[in-house]
Amino acid sequence: MSKLYGGIEGGGTKFVCAVGSGPQDIRAEIRIPTTTPEETLGRAIAFFRGQEKLAALGVACFGPLDPNLASPAFGQILATPKAGWTGADVAGALRSALNLPVAFDTDVNGAALAEARWGAGQGCDPVLYLTVGTGIGGGALVNGKLLHGLLHPEMGHIPLPRDPARDPFPGICPFHEDCFEGLAAGPALERRWGQKAENLPPEHPAWKLEAEYIALALSSYILTLAPQKIILGGGVGSAPHLLPLVRRSVQGWLNGYVQSPLVTQSIENYIVLPALGSRAGVLGALALAAHR
Amino acid sequence: MSKLYGGIEGGGTKFVCAVGSGPQDIRAEIRIPTTTPEETLGRAIAFFRGQEKLAALGVACFGPLDPNLASPAFGQILATPKAGWTGADVAGALRSALNLPVAFDTDVNGAALAEARWGAGQGCDPVLYLTVGTGIGGGALVNGKLLHGLLHPEMGHIPLPRDPARDPFPGICPFHEDCFEGLAAGPALERRWGQKAENLPPEHPAWKLEAEYIALALSSYILTLAPQKIILGGGVGSAPHLLPLVRRSVQGWLNGYVQSPLVTQSIENYIVLPALGSRAGVLGALALAAHR
Repeated sequence: MSKLYGGIEGGGTKFVCAVGSGPQDIRAEIRIPTTTPEETLGRAIAFFRGQEKLAALGVACFGPLDPNLASPAFGQILATPKAGWTGADVAGALRSALNLPVAFDTDVNGAALAEARWGAGQGCDPVLYLTVGTGIGGGALVNGKLLHGLLHPEMGHIPLPRDPARDPFPGICPFHEDCFEGLAAGPALERRWGQKAENLPPEHPAWKLEAEYIALALSSYILTLAPQKIILGGGVGSAPHLLPLVRRSVQGWLNGYVQSPLVTQSIENYIVLPALGSRAGVLGALALAAHR
Repeated sequence: MSKLYGGIEGGGTKFVCAVGSGPQDIRAEIRIPTTTPEETLGRAIAFFRGQEKLAALGVACFGPLDPNLASPAFGQILATPKAGWTGADVAGALRSALNLPVAFDTDVNGAALAEARWGAGQGCDPVLYLTVGTGIGGGALVNGKLLHGLLHPEMGHIPLPRDPARDPFPGICPFHEDCFEGLAAGPALERRWGQKAENLPPEHPAWKLEAEYIALALSSYILTLAPQKIILGGGVGSAPHLLPLVRRSVQGWLNGYVQSPLVTQSIENYIVLPALGSRAGVLGALALAAHR
């Protein structure tokens, strides 16, 4: 790949903008605090104007958003608690200012694409990328393309079983209370145990419960999407002591029903950490530009 | 479409074999009881040998099975409680006897494809087809192709929340007890309420509970797969008094989180009955042949 692309990882606290052609070739990068759309996008535009000629721009952004090219709202952020961003036409503003084709998708779809192209998901399809951190979100590459349709997946909000005798914590999702995110994202851990996830020691019972909720969700995704690779990222999800517990719990829950040796025998090659680590976001944006 | 195709809907009690080019053009059809693979496939082969020249054969079959062309076990039934069928090389036997290209997939993936091509899913992607009957299974067309990867989806077995105070029935799935199928397939209804689903009157409380489990599962699929159309079939799932309850319960559970008017305003166009009715199976097999 020799063409140069621009990529924006649009997050709730910062926008990371980069120019390059892939993981081994990032030529410029800046971080911009996320303030108003005008200011944040204005600074991004100024950065890209100062770069070499780009073939396209990819934006891997926080949501909810409209990723469907055929939709009148394509490129916009939908109703969001993030002040000032509801209805912001992110892709439109960048396209008209920079006169470039703009690919626009969720941050997690971008990460799934980057991992499928350059990371842990190479040669696999479907590839599922799940992040468990401040929130929980999932993206997937299916049949060679990113997964959307009715907007985009919101995998963090699936219903999960909770045994109140074992876990009386009622969940904190403002929409669904004890959905996956309401039970297992970082803020839920902090509320349930009275301390931040990163301060909970590996032997704390929090981690076994957390692994079980993640495993229930992964089992649901496996049964629904049939992914050939699952990549588990995010500040909570990529805690190294968590992964073996998650794998064992997935095997326990599926209980031999999915007759694939990847689940029953070599699950350490099936549910894995991101190969691109914290670079998955901005590389996802570049991959979106190259893949569009 | 003018080419002639053969289709086999392979079920646990009967195999339906047909020759045609689409829903308006079925030229021959027979039903064969499912006995041993040798006998059943032998009779199917004899039927197709007596037909005009076919371009390809499609098989939409009960599972679990291996639908991945690149796999050494492609075309085979995997471990199944159906006596004599474990390891049966269905596609291989048909291909070598009939000297035809053979497409091979699950019955529900076939139905999803037929509905996407000729039925309720036209113009939509992803299309999700769910059958709730003796068992529960789902198939999907995603990015223009059927969904598989790690074998094929087994959507009937996802974990769901169950409130033991409301529903003390522990579920009957031999692998997962109170997974979706263990709680909501026909045999679970019969065991819980002491009578067959078809004998439960529309005002029986069984239906509200059933609608809630189906709605929880559909909500999970919506959040994971982002389908643009959901087709609900099967002997239990297509009961007409059930559908409005399911739709309302999906809206209730999602609670405005998925910001699509298809969910919030016109869900009667989103979650629908099969347009092809009981023909979806054999038409699915023809569609597999044409789509391969």
